[in-house]
Amino acid sequence: MTKPHAQTCPVATFLNIFGDAWTWLIVREAFYGATRFGEFQRNTGAAKNLLSERLNKLVAEGFLERKDMGTSGPRYEYFLTEKGKSLIPVLATMVQWSNEHIHGEGGEPVFLIDGKHNQLLPKIGALGTDGREMKWGDILVRVGPGSNRLARERVEASPFHEGKKKLPKRVQPSN
Amino acid sequence: MTKPHAQTCPVATFLNIFGDAWTWLIVREAFYGATRFGEFQRNTGAAKNLLSERLNKLVAEGFLERKDMGTSGPRYEYFLTEKGKSLIPVLATMVQWSNEHIHGEGGEPVFLIDGKHNQLLPKIGALGTDGREMKWGDILVRVGPGSNRLARERVEASPFHEGKKKLPKRVQPSN
Repeated sequence: MTKPHAQTCPVATFLNIFGDAWTWLIVREAFYGATRFGEFQRNTGAAKNLLSERLNKLVAEGFLERKDMGTSGPRYEYFLTEKGKSLIPVLATMVQWSNEHIHGEGGEPVFLIDGKHNQLLPKIGALGTDGREMKWGDILVRVGPGSNRLARERVEASPFHEGKKKLPKRVQPSN
Repeated sequence: MTKPHAQTCPVATFLNIFGDAWTWLIVREAFYGATRFGEFQRNTGAAKNLLSERLNKLVAEGFLERKDMGTSGPRYEYFLTEKGKSLIPVLATMVQWSNEHIHGEGGEPVFLIDGKHNQLLPKIGALGTDGREMKWGDILVRVGPGSNRLARERVEASPFHEGKKKLPKRVQPSN
């Protein structure tokens, strides 16, 4: 994003940090256990200056911690913080979605495994309060306390605003 | 991404499409019920040529369908396809994560609601086969049938590869 988004929006603020493919590849590497600059470089293919800038940003935002692991002179490595580890559901959903909808059955590059039981990680879904899978149209939006005027107007104008009595036909789910 | 990633990887292929903040803002708008070019433009703040290019890409990739809704002359609108709607868990996880970790309690710009029960959408989590919440280190990786040589080598070298007997101390979860 070249300028901050005018509406306060959790998607936009998320993208201010993660709306960049290199950042995600670095996060992927951290989840795979990479800690050294050279590992990140080799496994993402990022140029040194770009990688350095993105790592610094992830440290500044509190997702990675930079520690001096050197015994004879400084040698810095990067470790996921608790905040970084909290990205698990976002990253795992992305992997599962990509396996299913881009690569398809039999074409998955990598599977996520529940290590304790040695089985495929169950599919992560958006479930309602009664446990049913939420389809488009099942999820409505409510204005939150952190919204500014523009965001409030946008949310209230949505056919999916919880105040709406009935969804217009054009956006009704087809099933 | 300026060039395709050398490893086959579900994160990288996902980012080939969605490693772009504007694309996500357009997807957000589609989920909010926007269908007209002018709505997308006003609500994302994207320049016309950029918006046009991104909408065309989302149509070409099968996430949006372009329909002529005009009664006197052509008037095109954009609707989520089933493939587009399948992004719900990815988008919803992103919103919930951002609300919790960027905006924090009391600062959420917008809430997602289970419309049937008029309650907050339960938190989407990565759960193991026994229903427990997965922490970093609980999820291992397995080489899939769609991996190329580079991807296979990368996954097998990870301390989280399912074949590893024991996680090295440096990447052991702290709790």
